[in-house]
Amino acid sequence: MALYVMKFGGSSVGDIERMQRVARRVMEKQEEGHRCVVVVSAMGDTTDDLIDQAKLLDPNPPAREMDMLMTTGEQISIALLSIAIHQLGGKAVSYTGWQAGFRTEPVHGNARITDIQPERVLKSLEEGNIVVVAGFQGMSEDREITTFGRGGSDTTAVALAAAIEADVCEIYTDVDGIYSTDPRIVSCARKLSEISYDEMLELANLGAAVLHPRAVEYAKHHQVKLVVRSSFNKNEGTVVKEDVTMEQGVVVSGIAYDKNVARITIMGVSHVPGVLAKVFGALAQAQINVDIIVQNGVQDGIADFSFTVALGERQKALDVIESIRSQVPYREATSEEDLVKVSIVGAGMVSHPGVAAQMFDVISQQGVNIKMVSTSEIKTSCVIDREKLNDVVRALHTAYGLDTNEQAFVGGPQERR
Amino acid sequence: MALYVMKFGGSSVGDIERMQRVARRVMEKQEEGHRCVVVVSAMGDTTDDLIDQAKLLDPNPPAREMDMLMTTGEQISIALLSIAIHQLGGKAVSYTGWQAGFRTEPVHGNARITDIQPERVLKSLEEGNIVVVAGFQGMSEDREITTFGRGGSDTTAVALAAAIEADVCEIYTDVDGIYSTDPRIVSCARKLSEISYDEMLELANLGAAVLHPRAVEYAKHHQVKLVVRSSFNKNEGTVVKEDVTMEQGVVVSGIAYDKNVARITIMGVSHVPGVLAKVFGALAQAQINVDIIVQNGVQDGIADFSFTVALGERQKALDVIESIRSQVPYREATSEEDLVKVSIVGAGMVSHPGVAAQMFDVISQQGVNIKMVSTSEIKTSCVIDREKLNDVVRALHTAYGLDTNEQAFVGGPQERR
Repeated sequence: MALYVMKFGGSSVGDIERMQRVARRVMEKQEEGHRCVVVVSAMGDTTDDLIDQAKLLDPNPPAREMDMLMTTGEQISIALLSIAIHQLGGKAVSYTGWQAGFRTEPVHGNARITDIQPERVLKSLEEGNIVVVAGFQGMSEDREITTFGRGGSDTTAVALAAAIEADVCEIYTDVDGIYSTDPRIVSCARKLSEISYDEMLELANLGAAVLHPRAVEYAKHHQVKLVVRSSFNKNEGTVVKEDVTMEQGVVVSGIAYDKNVARITIMGVSHVPGVLAKVFGALAQAQINVDIIVQNGVQDGIADFSFTVALGERQKALDVIESIRSQVPYREATSEEDLVKVSIVGAGMVSHPGVAAQMFDVISQQGVNIKMVSTSEIKTSCVIDREKLNDVVRALHTAYGLDTNEQAFVGGPQERR
Repeated sequence: MALYVMKFGGSSVGDIERMQRVARRVMEKQEEGHRCVVVVSAMGDTTDDLIDQAKLLDPNPPAREMDMLMTTGEQISIALLSIAIHQLGGKAVSYTGWQAGFRTEPVHGNARITDIQPERVLKSLEEGNIVVVAGFQGMSEDREITTFGRGGSDTTAVALAAAIEADVCEIYTDVDGIYSTDPRIVSCARKLSEISYDEMLELANLGAAVLHPRAVEYAKHHQVKLVVRSSFNKNEGTVVKEDVTMEQGVVVSGIAYDKNVARITIMGVSHVPGVLAKVFGALAQAQINVDIIVQNGVQDGIADFSFTVALGERQKALDVIESIRSQVPYREATSEEDLVKVSIVGAGMVSHPGVAAQMFDVISQQGVNIKMVSTSEIKTSCVIDREKLNDVVRALHTAYGLDTNEQAFVGGPQERR
């Protein structure tokens, strides 16, 4: 008998029929002799509909009231799921975030969990209940309702699993697990049976939307064993844990990409060392996240350098650079869109030299120009023209021996949280 | 500067535009120098929609989960109204029932308020906020979310007004105030400027749906001054309070009716005195509410008697009577529908003999047979055939001098809570 936390996202509980399917699934788990805590997101488009209504009233609504508004979405889900379980003859009890003991910072829209007091959840489990907990929400010390921001329900599930010392935290979603790359690009993508937290973090950060990075970080920190699997079938999912059995010959586990990339280039900068600090200090002060930074060869104390930001912050970044021109003389600042960052990720890379070199080689063979490069112990990223994305991903997938004969299953729309 | 509690029902906040109108109305009150607490119901059909979804899953859903589900309706309303006020440049803060300090019995679906801890509401008022509170909901000692049942938002408003010692509790609805009778039947019905709690209680209990009896009882008990007025115009409403200035010559304040009446008649009952206790004891045990009871003349220890129940309990009542036939011998039990109970209500009746006699006279002049009669200090009720309802109400309205020359305003759909 094990203790499970099972998390179902918005599309898994998108309508009454899906809600019933989730109820049956949880009941089956309980009938196998396990204890179950279920974490659910708001149904389908509920959250977006609520946001739309608020924006009709005020394009810039107060964050506190948005938290009051949006948390109703999950509260509806937990009540309906409990009713569905009850209808099947099961015993269920639903708890909002604050009832389940989630305490957070006094921040609205993106609060961090400070403490979980799971006594009520544990007591209800002891009484034979399936405990259904609203994802994405908690309460601050001064009894204000707060939310966790994007990926919030994943975080709820992982944090609760840690607090109640669950054996497994299952993340049910609309895909079968974590794939070696996006199956919409590579139809013979390989479902990974296991992946390490660090690899998952890189993949999550690099645009694979299945698991939110924050939830993975939490899982790594508390050593919560995650399983990512489909809510639409019984296939084995992907296990995310600390130590992963290395498959023979597999150095690269997955290939990720991120289209949300703009490149800014500043040309003809003098006194480079001090200048870098000034430029990136100003960008940081403007809350702009900078990803890759590359400096071109310095000649006579004059150099070009480039960096990437999210597409939505391109103009803001250019404005910041313009605003400091008097302190940081440069010849010209330009920007580029229509780019993509392609990354190979693998825990084995650190002990296998030449993996990155192979990547550059494969990309060159596709006749594609590499615009920027960045590396860490377990990943290498290249920024290239977006139009070449599919060719490059397919070529890398083959080159690193990731192709399989099976057809990947790609389900409905991506989960929102 | 006064302290107001303003309650808006579901149709007053039925859509985004109406929500904005309510926001403006509250802002105006604040701009006049008053402090405002607003209590709102769920928007329009929200509650019914939530109930429908639950019933799709389970025709008999657990009451606890229904409370979890339905309380989201008011939570959405308070958040959106606060956002609307914010958009107008106002300062608003919303509170769920538990946040506003409503403590209740540990009962779901129909909990009574045990205590109100209004410190948080008072503090927010002091900080210059318009405080927006979710109607209809509270929390039990063991932190379970509870609801108050029908009329719950009225009760929230009145109870909160008592707890914070508000000067007035305004109930905004879709009619201009309390009328001398249903304006749909009598177009020249008179809007009452004042009415006593007791009269209002009789009118509320007798089917005038504007105010829930429970809220009126609460107001009477705590001497909360109520004003019933329209959310769609600025007309003066009706003041409900303890001591009402009697208008010259007005003994009867209003005429109410209730179509939800079935009459059960038991004929040929012997040993009547002991039998009455048995019959009504059995009905009470079956949770059937009995209203009027009339016993016909006893002859040789054998009598007939009749009583009224709600239409929906007619068959259940007949079944109960059939089940005790062995203990209570009788010749025959019959039932009648298509009836209506018409009542005249007036605090002055107690000091004006002959008011009831006049009622019987007026009804007889309409050629209508009076089937049952019941009286209290401030009302007299007659059960008659339903087809004669409109004629009788009009004749009584004229006879008691209630007709006016103004046309009554009848707004949109009736408020649900």
